[in-house]
Amino acid sequence: MYKIGVDLGGTNIAVGLVDGEHRIAVKKSLPTMAQREAEAIVADIAKLCFEVCADKGISLSDVETIGIASPGIANHNTGIVQYSCNLPFKNFDIASSLKEKTGVNNIKVENDANAAALGEAVAGAAKGTLNSVMITLGTGVGGGIIIDGKIYSGFNCAGAELGHIVIEHGGVPCSCGRRGCWEAYSSATALIRMTKEKIEEYRQKGLSTVMLDAPKINGRTACDAMRTGDEAGKEVYDRYVSYLAAGLTNIVNIFQPEVISLGGGVSNEGQSLIDALMPLIRSEQYGHGFLDELTEIRIAELGNDAGIIGAAAL
Amino acid sequence: MYKIGVDLGGTNIAVGLVDGEHRIAVKKSLPTMAQREAEAIVADIAKLCFEVCADKGISLSDVETIGIASPGIANHNTGIVQYSCNLPFKNFDIASSLKEKTGVNNIKVENDANAAALGEAVAGAAKGTLNSVMITLGTGVGGGIIIDGKIYSGFNCAGAELGHIVIEHGGVPCSCGRRGCWEAYSSATALIRMTKEKIEEYRQKGLSTVMLDAPKINGRTACDAMRTGDEAGKEVYDRYVSYLAAGLTNIVNIFQPEVISLGGGVSNEGQSLIDALMPLIRSEQYGHGFLDELTEIRIAELGNDAGIIGAAAL
Repeated sequence: MYKIGVDLGGTNIAVGLVDGEHRIAVKKSLPTMAQREAEAIVADIAKLCFEVCADKGISLSDVETIGIASPGIANHNTGIVQYSCNLPFKNFDIASSLKEKTGVNNIKVENDANAAALGEAVAGAAKGTLNSVMITLGTGVGGGIIIDGKIYSGFNCAGAELGHIVIEHGGVPCSCGRRGCWEAYSSATALIRMTKEKIEEYRQKGLSTVMLDAPKINGRTACDAMRTGDEAGKEVYDRYVSYLAAGLTNIVNIFQPEVISLGGGVSNEGQSLIDALMPLIRSEQYGHGFLDELTEIRIAELGNDAGIIGAAAL
Repeated sequence: MYKIGVDLGGTNIAVGLVDGEHRIAVKKSLPTMAQREAEAIVADIAKLCFEVCADKGISLSDVETIGIASPGIANHNTGIVQYSCNLPFKNFDIASSLKEKTGVNNIKVENDANAAALGEAVAGAAKGTLNSVMITLGTGVGGGIIIDGKIYSGFNCAGAELGHIVIEHGGVPCSCGRRGCWEAYSSATALIRMTKEKIEEYRQKGLSTVMLDAPKINGRTACDAMRTGDEAGKEVYDRYVSYLAAGLTNIVNIFQPEVISLGGGVSNEGQSLIDALMPLIRSEQYGHGFLDELTEIRIAELGNDAGIIGAAAL
């Protein structure tokens, strides 16, 4: 029996037909064009649902459920997206709208970061565990919590905003309006800011760094420089890793999950990032020294497919 | 049908016979004398279990379960206290020991802060909710998480160390070995430290504060001074409330629980503390402005009985 997972982003709509083993059989996408009416976006989601089925030679009536991963606050009880800063949704009943357009009755809605965490839990880095947390290090810092195999998002479906844990009281401004949030220190955006600040510092002091010649500053600039032995690159990387480790240690102390999986652009640094983080986390986490079992930190495995696979598993 | 709740502390053992409505029918206690052998401590627990039953004219065989709330890492799956810094327990099978001494087969073990959170959830400030968090503001900052009516403590039973979320990266040293933990800013111990620092600051600057004449500095000194209009007292109180609000906002953003209940010595400040916290939390929490339902912060209701009532409800 197949399920459909919809990963609805601010840029693209990706729809996958997912089999009973959490594998994507067919995947198709269209641009979201987020400035459109909500109903027009849902019409394109329905179109993609028909297409992935047609490609596999089945009918939509053969599909068990459709799960939608949406940015913002998605109420899994009502099927309503209450609010999203990236889409024109305000208390929009996306489940009913898609049900009408597809004829599929069983439609689930969830926040995209939560759905991705479920994807990694059923088929990725946290496969085989009941309790895990996924952290996405991208434009922001996203979080998804899996407890007893299910997404936890609080009584109002707005929980797991793990990027908005203040780790520096009164620190740098965050996009959410607070100061000192983890997101403001551990997102790719924060890494780029730290890189630019360091380049400016070196420039003003008349010191040399390969980063002064970088044509464009991105999340890899400091990491690449560090690997060539560049001191400024190392300073940025060490500072970034220090904050990331502090935030991850917080997550360990709060949840003691079996696995924390790291996704998003920064996680492309791979095992070397884990190797840099683990000594800091192990030396500071609660229970180190007297617990037999400690949380493992792993790179997420499903990449951009986590949302589709998680949505299908809702 | 009665249950027994045991609140095992570093100073006292308190045992209560609890009825089906989560009310304590009989309560008795003995000093823990924590330097003793573990078995001697359990013998006193068993003695108190017999006594609370005798007082009610029932037999221990009429008791459905005994729940034990212990400091440290208590494994609810195995009945073993793996580690406690306040008691001589190291991988001690307290459940088997108490079973042998009482003849009661159904014995549950849980961390004391987690048990207190369950107590508040079944019979106190969070009664009627499925998802709540209890924060204890005492010598340290303790946390207990209730999800779907059950205690959540991670895969290794060491979770919910909410006091050990770093909220000031590289900040003041915490008893756990990290720097900048919430506990180091929001415990009664931290409030006393802030009070002493402020008094010293005023003394050095030759400024006047009623706190200079306080015979003994405790967690109420700054609050009492503030209420008389003392500027130094207000500065301490405002700083303390600012950190406490930041930590509580973190808890809201992580869990979006229906209720956060505040226990421990500092919570004796009561509603005036809530009134000082709420504007700061509401203005900074994720979802403020577009969520219909927001977490309520309440003073815990059960006081020292929360551990007994929670243990009985395990």
